[in-house]
Parts: sequence; C-alpha cells; structure tokens
Amino acid sequence: MIVSISYVEGRINMDELINAIKQFNKERDWDQFHSPENLAKSISIEAGELLECFQWDAENYDKDEVCEELADVFNYCFQMASKLEVDPKEIILKKLEKTRQKYPVEKAKGVSTKYDKL
Amino acid sequence: MIVSISYVEGRINMDELINAIKQFNKERDWDQFHSPENLAKSISIEAGELLECFQWDAENYDKDEVCEELADVFNYCFQMASKLEVDPKEIILKKLEKTRQKYPVEKAKGVSTKYDKL
Amino acid sequence: MIVSISYVEGRINMDELINAIKQFNKERDWDQFHSPENLAKSISIEAGELLECFQWDAENYDKDEVCEELADVFNYCFQMASKLEVDPKEIILKKLEKTRQKYPVEKAKGVSTKYDKL
Amino acid sequence: MIVSISYVEGRINMDELINAIKQFNKERDWDQFHSPENLAKSISIEAGELLECFQWDAENYDKDEVCEELADVFNYCFQMASKLEVDPKEIILKKLEKTRQKYPVEKAKGVSTKYDKL
Repeated sequence: MIVSISYVEGRINMDELINAIKQFNKERDWDQFHSPENLAKSISIEAGELLECFQWDAENYDKDEVCEELADVFNYCFQMASKLEVDPKEIILKKLEKTRQKYPVEKAKGVSTKYDKL
Repeated sequence: MIVSISYVEGRINMDELINAIKQFNKERDWDQFHSPENLAKSISIEAGELLECFQWDAENYDKDEVCEELADVFNYCFQMASKLEVDPKEIILKKLEKTRQKYPVEKAKGVSTKYDKL
Repeated sequence: MIVSISYVEGRINMDELINAIKQFNKERDWDQFHSPENLAKSISIEAGELLECFQWDAENYDKDEVCEELADVFNYCFQMASKLEVDPKEIILKKLEKTRQKYPVEKAKGVSTKYDKL
Repeated sequence: MIVSISYVEGRINMDELINAIKQFNKERDWDQFHSPENLAKSISIEAGELLECFQWDAENYDKDEVCEELADVFNYCFQMASKLEVDPKEIILKKLEKTRQKYPVEKAKGVSTKYDKL
C-alpha cells in the first residue's frame, strides 16, 4: 500500500498536503474567493506578518510564531500552485535551473551580489 | 529502492526538493546570508514580485511569470523551514488545525469575513 | 504671493507635490488604473523593492537606490490619499493620536514590545 | 509669523508633520530601533496590512481602516526620509522626473504596460 510506504519511509508527501488544504477550503466553500490575484495578495499579506516577527530584532524571534506565519505563506503558495494547475516541485526545479545560469558558481560563490552586477 | 518507488508512484517528494535547494546554495556558499531574518525579507520581496504580475490587471496575467515568481517564494519558504529545522508539512497541518478552530464550518461557510468579526 | 512665501521659507508644500503627481498621471491618462485596490497593491510592490535594498546587508545600502524606492512608495501613498479624498497630514496625526494611547510613554519608553504584550 | 501664515493659507506643512512624528518617537526613546533597515521592514509590514483591507474584495473596503493603515505606511516613510536626511518632496519630484523619461506621454498614454515592454 503506497500511502503506508510513504509514511514508513518518513517521506513528506506534497499531494496529501495539498489535498488537506483543498478539503479545508471546500468544507468552507472558500474556493470562490481564491482567484490567483487574491492568492497573490494573500501571500504578500502573510509574508508581511512573517516579517513582523523580525521587525525590531533580527535575532530574538519567537520560533512558534515564525512557524505559524511561515505555514500561512506556504498554505497560500500551495493553493496558488493548485489553482494554476502546476506542480510546485516542477516550477521550483525549473526556476532553480534558470537561477543556476544567472548565478554560475564561479562568479556567485560567497557573494550576495545581484546577477546584473556580478 | 525507495526513491524509485516514490517516482514510480508519481508522488512529489519534498525531501528531495529541499535537498536540491540546499545543494544549490551550498555550491555557491550562500548559506552564510540565509539567516531567518534575511529569508523573511526575501519572502516578502519575492511576494511583492509575484503580486506585480497582477498589479494593474487581475485577470490577464502571464502564467509563466507567475510560476517563476511563485517558485521564488516557495524556494525561500523551504529554506526558512530548513533553517528552522521544521518540517513544512507538519507546520502547515498544525496551523490548518488552528485555523479550523478559528473558522468553524458552520460560521465560515461561504463568507470571507475575518474570524474576529464572524 | 503665497507660493513664493512658501518657498522663501523653505517649507515643503504637500499640495503642490500632490498636484505634480496628479498632473503626471493625467498626462498619461493613468487615473483609470488607480483604483484604491491597485494602489494598495502598488504600495506593497514598491515596499518590497525598497526592502530589497537591505535584503542581504542591513548596513551597506545604496542611499540613492533607497531614495528612489522610497519615493515610489511615497508617490503611491499620496495617490491613495488623493483617491480617497483625505488629507495625508490629517490621517497621520489622527493615527498618531491613536497610537499614543496604545503606547503610553510610561509603558513604551525604550522598548519595542507590541502594545498587546506591554 | 511663519507658522500661522502656513495655517491661515490652509496649506499642508510637511516639516511640522515630520516634527510631530519625531517628537512622538523621542518621547518613547524609540529612535534606537529605527535603523533604515528596520524602517524598510516596517514599511513592508504596514503595506501588507493596508493590502489586507482589499484582500478578498476590491470594492467594499472600510475607508477608516484603509486610512489608518495608509497613515502607518506614511509615518514610516517620513521617518525613513528623516533618518536618511532627505527631503521627501525632493526625492519624489526627482523620481517623477526619471519616470517621466521612462514613460514618455506619447508611448505610455492610456496603457499600464511596464516601460521595458513599451
């Protein structure tokens, strides 16, 4: 049985996670509000709340609060991917490949310079 | 062999994804820049770029651009989780549970009202 | 003559500034895009660009770049105020008064604690 | 007396506004927290709260709430200008001039296209 294998191995299964989020919204009939634009706004709003954990102090953050706000950003990101019918893993790896070309190891190593100034 | 099972089943494996991102940063020696605070700033910055795809028009967005920006937000979110040594799936499900209690189906169904005004 | 008095004294005149911004948009027929919601998105987007100046380094920022991005945030804020037909000075002073009550000097002095934890 | 002229004329005086904000922070000894980076984070955070007023509905916003959040963004913007020792009016007009060149009337009129695609 696949699901149990997945758990036995301790692997994270994104499909199940996405389904849990979808189910949550379906129960509340919230899908009607989740246009790509509204999700983009929501990601920005939640990213702001995450940033608030570090507003005046970069070091002494409340880890539980950070995790909750990070979870909210993740949640809307998964919803956006789902709405666009794209696979999160695929778009992330694709973008990583593009970034790899903009930031070749020999130029980018150890510096935080933006690619257009490398 | 576990990895091949994971692919045979077409399941998305977050661990492998996180490892690809880690490897990318390790090659560039970028880990030194990725404090939780810097990652929180980065998530906000990328969320702003994602929002820019919808700045003047909520409907006619460029799907490829949206996917690229969404991938950037995802990337930094996974890095943040990794830095905090938390499992994305776990924090998302935990927060979903909390949200479930703030937005019970019978009150929240079909409305976008914030919990403190429900 | 009032305008010259204003300049002779070296005082900043917000009305003239707001008019310059309005004139700029009128020439381009851009007012049609500037709904309050679009302006709110724009403020967030530009705030992200401002934050980008400090993404990896809190100290060594490029002051000219910071000023340009700050100017963009200001610009959209003035447009929003203008669209809502409110006086920036008035809403800022009103909010300052409200914040004064949430953060009384004797409690808030020298600490960055949020009001609900004071 | 200049101040009274300024009021008699009903003109908005930015200097007085900036001084009110400075005084507010001085009383609370908050200047120590207001590094340019922290102010940039604060502007992003408040921009997110402003955007939240339009999260699920672009039309039916609460004007009072919008004004309060806009006031917060303004407040931190003025603090940033003050911290950088720049004149808000000057940097806004300077940037407007630059934007004027990127978006010439004959190309930009009536379209929301970004300058690099004009």
